[in-house]
Order: sequence, then C-alpha cells, then structure tokens
Amino acid sequence: MHASPQLSNRWFDYSVRVQPRHTDYAGIVWHGSYLEWMEAARIDTFRSVGLEYAALVQMGCDLPVIDVSLRYQKAIPMGEEVIVKSRISKREKVRLHWDQDIFCINDEKPCLLGHVTLVPVNSENGRILRKPPKTLQDAIDHIMN
Amino acid sequence: MHASPQLSNRWFDYSVRVQPRHTDYAGIVWHGSYLEWMEAARIDTFRSVGLEYAALVQMGCDLPVIDVSLRYQKAIPMGEEVIVKSRISKREKVRLHWDQDIFCINDEKPCLLGHVTLVPVNSENGRILRKPPKTLQDAIDHIMN
Amino acid sequence: MHASPQLSNRWFDYSVRVQPRHTDYAGIVWHGSYLEWMEAARIDTFRSVGLEYAALVQMGCDLPVIDVSLRYQKAIPMGEEVIVKSRISKREKVRLHWDQDIFCINDEKPCLLGHVTLVPVNSENGRILRKPPKTLQDAIDHIMN
Amino acid sequence: MHASPQLSNRWFDYSVRVQPRHTDYAGIVWHGSYLEWMEAARIDTFRSVGLEYAALVQMGCDLPVIDVSLRYQKAIPMGEEVIVKSRISKREKVRLHWDQDIFCINDEKPCLLGHVTLVPVNSENGRILRKPPKTLQDAIDHIMN
Repeated sequence: MHASPQLSNRWFDYSVRVQPRHTDYAGIVWHGSYLEWMEAARIDTFRSVGLEYAALVQMGCDLPVIDVSLRYQKAIPMGEEVIVKSRISKREKVRLHWDQDIFCINDEKPCLLGHVTLVPVNSENGRILRKPPKTLQDAIDHIMN
Repeated sequence: MHASPQLSNRWFDYSVRVQPRHTDYAGIVWHGSYLEWMEAARIDTFRSVGLEYAALVQMGCDLPVIDVSLRYQKAIPMGEEVIVKSRISKREKVRLHWDQDIFCINDEKPCLLGHVTLVPVNSENGRILRKPPKTLQDAIDHIMN
Repeated sequence: MHASPQLSNRWFDYSVRVQPRHTDYAGIVWHGSYLEWMEAARIDTFRSVGLEYAALVQMGCDLPVIDVSLRYQKAIPMGEEVIVKSRISKREKVRLHWDQDIFCINDEKPCLLGHVTLVPVNSENGRILRKPPKTLQDAIDHIMN
Repeated sequence: MHASPQLSNRWFDYSVRVQPRHTDYAGIVWHGSYLEWMEAARIDTFRSVGLEYAALVQMGCDLPVIDVSLRYQKAIPMGEEVIVKSRISKREKVRLHWDQDIFCINDEKPCLLGHVTLVPVNSENGRILRKPPKTLQDAIDHIMN
C-alpha cells in the first residue's frame, strides 16, 4: 500500500445491545464477548464505505487478526446499549492498526480500550498479500480520509 | 395468567447480519449460532412493547428456556442479512410458546424453523412463578394482540 | 446405508467442566452452551472408534445437524462436572438419530434431554450423500454395536 | 499479598481439542476462541493446586481479567490437539500476570503468545480486594513455587 505509515483520526460508530449470552455468572459482560463486537464493528465500517467483507473473501483475500490488546476499564451489565468506536489509526505497509474503544451510551469514559492489527492474506495459502485487491485499498482510503 | 390457552398470530421482525464468528469451517452458520439470534429477537420483541428484560430480572423474575426445537432447512453463508420472525403463538398458564422462523432477506422459504418454550421463574430460587409481575403480563398481552 | 432403520442402545460418555464462559447473568449454564458440548461429544464418540471428524471432512463428507430438540430439566451452575451420554439410537437410510443426555456427575436424573439428527452431505455442494464414505459407515457400525 | 513483585517460571499444561465451533469460515480457529481456552486453563491450574474457582466466587471473591494481549503466530485447523501452557509469571501487589502460550501438539513454536492480567475483586461491589482470601493466596503460592 504506502511506503511510510499513513495515519488517520476518523472514527466510525457501531451499536450493540448487551444480551444475556454476552454475560457470565458475575452478571456482567464476559471478557471475550468484546472481540465479537469489535469484529462486527470493523466489518460494518468496511460496509459503510461500500466493501462487503464476504465479497473480499470471495476475491481470495482474507483479513486475519494478528495482534490484539484489550484494557478493561469498566464492567458492563446486561441490557446496556454500547457503542464501539473504531478507526484505522495507522496503515503500515499492508498492516492495518485499528483502535476500537467501547462506551456505554451514557458514559464519557470508555469501558474498554482495544487495539487490533490485521493483515491481508491469500485465502488459499494464508500468505501475506503484498498487493491486496484494489477494492480493499480503496475502502481503506475511504475509512482513513 | 389465563385459564385456557391464549393464541396469537402477530409476528415481530429482528434483523441480524451473519458475522465470521457465526460461521464454522464449512463456511456457513454454525448450528448453535441461531439460538443467540433467537434470544436477541425475543428480548427485542419485549423491548418493542416497552419491557426491558434486564428490568424484569431486577424485579426478581427470570424467563429461562425449558424447551427448544430447531429444524434446519437451508444453510446460511457469511455476510447474509437474515430476519428472525418471532411470535408468542400460545400462552398456556405461565408457559410461553414462541415460534421463531429465520429467513434470508431475499428468500420466501425459511432457513430455520424454531420453537422455544419459556417459563417465568423466581430469580432467587429458580421456582416457577405462578403470579409473574404485572409488567410481564402486560407486555405479553401487547405482543399477542 | 441400510434399508430398514437400525437401532442401538450403546452409550458413550464425554466429560465437560462448566466454565464461566458457559454461564450467563443468572449464574447457570446459558441454554445454548449445551449444543457445543453435544457436538464435542459426538466428535469424541467418532474418535473413540477410530474416525477423526476432520479427516472425514477432508474426504469431502460433512455431517451437518438438520434437527435439534432439547428439554431442559435442571439448571447447572459454574464449576460442575457434567457427563454427556451419547448414542446413535437409530440409523434411517443415511440419517443418524442421536440421543444425548446430560448429567451432573452426582445426579441420577438428567439435566438435559437432547435429540439431534445428522445427515451426511457432499462438502462441496451441500447435497445429501446417498453413499457416504465406507470409513463413516464402518464407524457408525462400531458405535451402534 | 507481597510488597515487591514475585516472579515464577513454573508452567502448567491444559489440553484442548479444536472443535468445529471454534473455527470460522476460513477453516481455522476464530481469533476469539483462544480466550475461552485460556480461561479454562487458568481455572484448571487453580484446580490442580486445590482451589475450585466456583468456591472462590462463593467466598465473595472474583478474578476478572483487566488486560489481555494476544499475538497470533500460526493458524490452527479443526481437529488439532493443542496445549495451553500457563504460568503466573509475576505477582505485583494483588495483580496476577499470566503468560499463556498455545502450542499445536507436534510443534515446537507456539501458535499464540498470550498475556492476561487478573485482579481479585469483591463480587458484591466489584472493588479491588486488597486482602484476598487466604485460600487464594495459598493457591497462588503453590502455582508459583
């Protein structure tokens, strides 16, 4: 994609309702449930700029997660409405660095601070795609600008 | 609630987007994922008539599933938009019988036919509540009429 | 496989420990978690007679679930050790009817009564396989006898 | 617990079989499934030194995850047998720092490098427990020595 890292500060919102299934015995969201919401938010961000993730996969390009970091700031109870705020903060060669912060709808401080790194791979053999499909590159440009 | 079974034919729609996480190695929705969607659809139906499920639980009333039956008619791929159509088909004493059929958005035939039975219990001791909270009874009346 | 239904009464045990993730806000196993355990128990049953499910899939044969019925008899708390008891109760043409009952380790009565129907399909096109691989037929014979 | 950080290099093994449910459309383990295995491995480590996690919770002490970091090194296919290797690498006041690395059974290099931080809290109000139950402190001593 680009030789020097490209940075962005444009955020996208994705809304989730906390279901019983997201919670555990402690009555709050189980710590792994957030990864589901973050994935759905990334895919929705791509959709909002015109790229269907399933279509990308059908072109032979996959976008696996290679790195995750999550800092849990506040527990979330069942029934709450939460917003996943997502941006591609940095594109470094083909690596996409996402910030994904999760807020309860009436809170100013985030409940979770997340960072996820993705890399495009050939769906057939799992190798990194140095030249990802143009449709993906265009979608990333839209998301970052 | 009522002495003789009460029947209804009023359906509620709930929309779901198929995420990677819902699928398995076969590239289609894993057979257990549907139960998540069906739960979210029931809770959304209660919300649409003004009852927050979390509020009901805080009143000391829970609505566990006591019976499930699922007939899988057609596999659903990633990215698809599906509609969960739900109704409380029958109220028999305190038992709630739900029909929940799942459709891909452009299909006329359902991908899954589901039936779920719920019963109100005391959240403290798990015993069946012969007299559920009035707010629940009112919500059920709204859903069925 | 066989023209008239073949019946069996041979059970296989599979052990599961209830994890926090299996539970929900009510402090007991979420109603959908059982389907995970039942799938793992079926695959373990095939493994115990020498058939790796992943190997079957690589041969081009998949075994999707086409019907599920679950009756929840007793809630299970976190930390409990449970046994999934599984048998292929009936083989009807290519359809496999499984009984899968789940017990807490010190109980005589089941916590859940499950029935699941599977059918072999061609993994490429999803069509029912009238002639499943011999390795599958042999494994089923082992399980039922 | 201790004024200066306490370090350890003692590892515990926990074995997992990759089920269909752990995989996604790409035919490999979905990136969030690892958190389930890591939780089960930590609980099993406590059990191996005599502490049932459910008993700890009943004493009013919970151990939520406050920080997660995961580096995905190699994709894992269905059917694989994996080992989760876990240690409490460091105890810093009441914070427990776990290393959890996941290996396919015949590999020398890890498929995933994980770090998880836990902190004991009062299950009633979610506040950090400066004085966790002695049974937890003893279990941690066993795990680290």
